[in-house]
Amino acid sequence: MRNAALAYAESQRDAFLTQLFDFLRIPSVSTQPAHRPDIERAARWLADHMRAIGLTRAEVLPTAGHPVVYGEWLEAGPQAETILIYGHYDVQPPDPLDQWLSPPFEPQVRDDNLYARGAADDKGQLFIHLKAVESYLKGAGRLPVNVKFILEGEEESGSGGLEAFVRAERDRLQATAILVSDSPMPSPQQPALLYALRGLTYMEVTVQGPDHDLHSGSYGGAVRNPAEALCGVLARLKDEEGHITIPGFYDRVRPLEAEEREALARLPFTEARFLQETGVPAPWGEAGYTVLEQITARPTLEINGLVSGYTGPGSKTIIPATAAAKISMRLVPDQDPEEIARLFTEHVARLMPPQVRATIETRHTAWPVLIDRHASAMEAAARALEAVFGAPPVYTREGGTIPIVATFQRQLGAPVVLMGFGLPDDNLHAPNEKFHLPNFYRGIAASIHFLAEMGALRTG
Amino acid sequence: MRNAALAYAESQRDAFLTQLFDFLRIPSVSTQPAHRPDIERAARWLADHMRAIGLTRAEVLPTAGHPVVYGEWLEAGPQAETILIYGHYDVQPPDPLDQWLSPPFEPQVRDDNLYARGAADDKGQLFIHLKAVESYLKGAGRLPVNVKFILEGEEESGSGGLEAFVRAERDRLQATAILVSDSPMPSPQQPALLYALRGLTYMEVTVQGPDHDLHSGSYGGAVRNPAEALCGVLARLKDEEGHITIPGFYDRVRPLEAEEREALARLPFTEARFLQETGVPAPWGEAGYTVLEQITARPTLEINGLVSGYTGPGSKTIIPATAAAKISMRLVPDQDPEEIARLFTEHVARLMPPQVRATIETRHTAWPVLIDRHASAMEAAARALEAVFGAPPVYTREGGTIPIVATFQRQLGAPVVLMGFGLPDDNLHAPNEKFHLPNFYRGIAASIHFLAEMGALRTG
Repeated sequence: MRNAALAYAESQRDAFLTQLFDFLRIPSVSTQPAHRPDIERAARWLADHMRAIGLTRAEVLPTAGHPVVYGEWLEAGPQAETILIYGHYDVQPPDPLDQWLSPPFEPQVRDDNLYARGAADDKGQLFIHLKAVESYLKGAGRLPVNVKFILEGEEESGSGGLEAFVRAERDRLQATAILVSDSPMPSPQQPALLYALRGLTYMEVTVQGPDHDLHSGSYGGAVRNPAEALCGVLARLKDEEGHITIPGFYDRVRPLEAEEREALARLPFTEARFLQETGVPAPWGEAGYTVLEQITARPTLEINGLVSGYTGPGSKTIIPATAAAKISMRLVPDQDPEEIARLFTEHVARLMPPQVRATIETRHTAWPVLIDRHASAMEAAARALEAVFGAPPVYTREGGTIPIVATFQRQLGAPVVLMGFGLPDDNLHAPNEKFHLPNFYRGIAASIHFLAEMGALRTG
Repeated sequence: MRNAALAYAESQRDAFLTQLFDFLRIPSVSTQPAHRPDIERAARWLADHMRAIGLTRAEVLPTAGHPVVYGEWLEAGPQAETILIYGHYDVQPPDPLDQWLSPPFEPQVRDDNLYARGAADDKGQLFIHLKAVESYLKGAGRLPVNVKFILEGEEESGSGGLEAFVRAERDRLQATAILVSDSPMPSPQQPALLYALRGLTYMEVTVQGPDHDLHSGSYGGAVRNPAEALCGVLARLKDEEGHITIPGFYDRVRPLEAEEREALARLPFTEARFLQETGVPAPWGEAGYTVLEQITARPTLEINGLVSGYTGPGSKTIIPATAAAKISMRLVPDQDPEEIARLFTEHVARLMPPQVRATIETRHTAWPVLIDRHASAMEAAARALEAVFGAPPVYTREGGTIPIVATFQRQLGAPVVLMGFGLPDDNLHAPNEKFHLPNFYRGIAASIHFLAEMGALRTG
């Protein structure tokens, strides 16, 4: 079955690319209301395509936001493994347009790369799995496992609709493993399995001083300045060594295993490149951890925004009435984002001087994700990647947050396999987004192998 | 001479008020270019009026900004005292117009108050002295002293033109005392002499972290956040007791005399009113000083503005590229504003973490003012006020800054008498600005007495 699928995929290389071109031509920008018809067109295109490749069910399902596209093939029977495949068909806005070498919604191949908005994030990557499934159904007449697709249209604007959908449709989405390709690998020769994502607690603190801006000549010296009060509190949230000082903040942090630290240290990372990417003169972070550990495996606290008083050109001599800050914390297993919100709120309220009034609000939370590298689905994915790339995958952690992954893990109780085929220089969210074409084809082969390896778990 | 002038003033009450109405009808808003012709009309009106009341010279003099009006009567001779009288004929914008009970440039008397923009600040107050001089020249044929008027048209927009004019025309402006009425007295029964103004050093600090906003998931934890760095520095500029921690900051501060502290403690000040005016739950300032001392007699440091990263609605998960703050310090004698700028700059640079780059700029400086309460001109003013109001003046300090007063003091080397006839509820810079009419007439009498007392200094 596996070989028939691989042979079919090999024979259809040009057709697969042509189809991907058609998909990429739809400007399904989820954050811009003017593109709502394009979002709907992309959803219908996917459902039609699912039917064409042989899925037994394919439908566009409304949510409170943009629709999700659901498809399934369950003919492997109730005893077989069931793989839920996730992707997102929406894309980032293409601006600034004048920096694109070819138009963002007119795909073009240059050298070995396919340039288009969504090429890597995530249309190209989700298409890999549609093509792997097609290769089985058309090349071998069947799949070694049951397959469900859940493709959303608002990943780039928060996944609100899908979050609710997953909670409401847990039975329909039940699976033994969940497969997601929406992340990078370090280089075209080096496949990767992502096994950890950071969570998030996003807070907003507003400090009210006087009830209106005061003349700093008439009142300066006797009124607690809310900007000063806010700075005083923010300055006390970390110590000189970069440790976060909120009591209890680290209590649930699972220590890094020695083996993990060694593996992270072997990953390709150079400080020179970090400095170039960021433009800072030197890195700075929590003492006792490497930069790579700081940005992927340790929790953080960052001020995202700050505003008070007069911020225009020139000067204005006032004591501002208010000061406000947006502060987010990236969390690692097993921190609980709601608990962290509570600890932050209590600590900030405790530090705030009594001569101002503070409002502390929780804006978002997302759970961190940690995946067992030794789960059978992860080992199946490792074998599949090694079969195609000739090298075993490295195991990586991501500093960012993909809230839907935690939702899958927590709501569906199945292991998630984060097997990405992007590259670090794919220009995600930027002009000239690209997808490395060899990765597209190797991705299809890797997906075929993965489904075979998963099928073998029950029979072998 | 004095009695003839007082009798003339008494006989002309209605005429004086009619003339002031004419002056107030000119909408001489200095900060709005559309009112430039009104500024020039007001300047010409004043020069014409000076000639009409008998000054021997009156002219409109151009500056880099709005013109100054200069007038003089020097017939008392070189042995007599020469009083330079300052005022400003420009006014604040009248907005918001819909909150005025009568139109801002159509003066109206209700109860004992004259309502109009500029009624107290400062057209009504400068007119007092024109009427006192007229009373001598028309009622007695001469003045007991030489008089020079210097009336500017851009006090409300920084006095830039006049500052340069004073530096360039020191000879012409030479005087033995300078008289300014542009401040309040505590109540209609309680005259005041203002003997101290705070100076100002206004700084701007810009902190550059990464060279562009960074994704806080990808880089958070290993980059020094410029907002965090700035808050850390700002939080260390004062200690827990409200003392400013910049080394050398207090070195030149002249200690408050026991007599001054007692006099300040006797001034009508209630904390309840302070809380009502500011809307804060409690005052907060430098330990060891009363609120009134904190807002008038002690130097301060206030954050006037703060901005970094994303400040719009909702959330954005970034490490901001920059953070900036506007910070001003009110200074007291004998602090040197340029020296304070240097001490601030050195201290902030020393505190700034090395992983960010800071730019520290001086925006403005102004010298503090302290006037010897026992100078003969001050004692003459005290006698004049007591003669009219039946009570000796209280001596007050003002927390704000009037840069031109320091310039007069430093450039002309003469004592300045700050004899104000406004009231605390005159609504300066706000809708329904008013001038208490009894103060207008008593002010004219006080000015007549003051000129007589000054004249008596040489002859008596």
